[in-house]
Amino acid sequence: MRRCWKTGATLLFGAGLGAAASRLLSARDREEGEERPGLLSRVPVLPVPGVQASELTVSPGASGAVMKYGFPSLANIKTRESYVTSYDPRTRTASWVIERLNPAALSGSSDRKYCEFKEDDSVHVFHRATNTDYRGSGFDRGHLAAAANHKWSQKAMDDTFYLSNVAPQNPHLNQNTWNNLEKLCRSLTKRYLNVYVCTGPLYLPRQEADGKLYVHYQVLGRNHVAVPTHFFKVLILEQADGRGVELRSYVLPNEPVDEKVPLERFLVPIETIERASGLLFVPNIMKRSSNLQAITAK
Amino acid sequence: MRRCWKTGATLLFGAGLGAAASRLLSARDREEGEERPGLLSRVPVLPVPGVQASELTVSPGASGAVMKYGFPSLANIKTRESYVTSYDPRTRTASWVIERLNPAALSGSSDRKYCEFKEDDSVHVFHRATNTDYRGSGFDRGHLAAAANHKWSQKAMDDTFYLSNVAPQNPHLNQNTWNNLEKLCRSLTKRYLNVYVCTGPLYLPRQEADGKLYVHYQVLGRNHVAVPTHFFKVLILEQADGRGVELRSYVLPNEPVDEKVPLERFLVPIETIERASGLLFVPNIMKRSSNLQAITAK
Repeated sequence: MRRCWKTGATLLFGAGLGAAASRLLSARDREEGEERPGLLSRVPVLPVPGVQASELTVSPGASGAVMKYGFPSLANIKTRESYVTSYDPRTRTASWVIERLNPAALSGSSDRKYCEFKEDDSVHVFHRATNTDYRGSGFDRGHLAAAANHKWSQKAMDDTFYLSNVAPQNPHLNQNTWNNLEKLCRSLTKRYLNVYVCTGPLYLPRQEADGKLYVHYQVLGRNHVAVPTHFFKVLILEQADGRGVELRSYVLPNEPVDEKVPLERFLVPIETIERASGLLFVPNIMKRSSNLQAITAK
Repeated sequence: MRRCWKTGATLLFGAGLGAAASRLLSARDREEGEERPGLLSRVPVLPVPGVQASELTVSPGASGAVMKYGFPSLANIKTRESYVTSYDPRTRTASWVIERLNPAALSGSSDRKYCEFKEDDSVHVFHRATNTDYRGSGFDRGHLAAAANHKWSQKAMDDTFYLSNVAPQNPHLNQNTWNNLEKLCRSLTKRYLNVYVCTGPLYLPRQEADGKLYVHYQVLGRNHVAVPTHFFKVLILEQADGRGVELRSYVLPNEPVDEKVPLERFLVPIETIERASGLLFVPNIMKRSSNLQAITAK
């Protein structure tokens, strides 16, 4: 595992960032990665000495457990059977969705044939996406918390079909490389006690012909559902021996991505996601450690 | 006053919306204005029967008074001497700023020559605008809560110079038509007991050559400070006799606007701002009325 981590970090501060993502992330972000060591190199393993036995159980139904490492923001929080989310009423999709994966969550008889995408009626009708907004748009209704992560309960799987847990996603990406990233998250449950996955949209600027940076994204349907330019996934990987956690953070562009490109190519410093999203991950994770010094130590 | 109101409403549901704004607001928004009567026609005067005498005083320093009609959202609220604001860490500017104007707030010896634009160090450094971001950008540091609204206290005026109360604004707009709108807000204090002003940025979509709708905005400097496509001002006008409130809502494009265009041309239905911003104004105002029926009565 440590090896994989170092591989990712090397890619990040070299030519890195993944072929597609590097085209779209601003020149400034890349410069920053080169100028300073970045958080990834400083936070390879975060000790969690204060973990209680009760937190090390693998009961998937405990929604409170999802917040063990805090929330990246506190706006419009909704708690569902399988995830906790922060809703962005302006873009009509989530700012982030956090879920906790472990072998217990992944096993069960739930079936997505019983699930249907549905409006989130806890969101005001002015700020809510509908199935009609997506129809004929050319975009998939891309799950943020994936349905296949929550086989343990039909209700948990059903809840992933709220359109507040969905964002417009390029079909090729959704059905190939993004799907592979979701599979990777599930496969990591074999090696880690718990895999906390935080997923969300990004709206990254790019340089246009006039040399200036612009954010540019499509909106769908009557409700103007925002089409993210990119998606992020932040993985907090809890070691089975309870000694610490590892952090992996990915950014993928919302466009077709060749499946042959290794997923490690899309690893980015967590700081890149924190700056672009307006969210913060590291300060909350640090609160779970009674020894702050250890975080900056390699 | 009532006459102006009706003029605005007529414009809204006819060809309306103001010459510049109508070019940029989506076709859908205009259609909606035509399809249904809209909120403006339903909410001309909102009775406020539950008003206490204590709420009718004109002490400008009471920051709690600013929230009389609630907040349009609850994310990242900051309370300052002269206003309450909700900060958007992704765009590096406020989602909205609410202030309360009355003759007492407008009089005093405060002078903006003592004020300097300053970073808001209550915002994480990843999500904060700096003066350097604006330098050479061609955009003014446009106040959301205007400095001249808070002559009653040097601290109150100083607080309007936090860059979290500022957004990149076209200089011609800032110095002409927007300035006139700010003056209008102040002049309305002669006719109303209190003038509650809520100001914020908008990022409105427009149709591009492929027939689809896109949001497109520049970002400034190392911190990618978002340049709004439009600005809104929502005015809640409290009648001096305590009988009710009137609502006026404006949208101006972030571009030069001919001063000869009457400000009434930029009146829009409050629903347009509520949909585009992800905020809600009317439900909170309705909570101040013990008689909900009265709101739909003309």
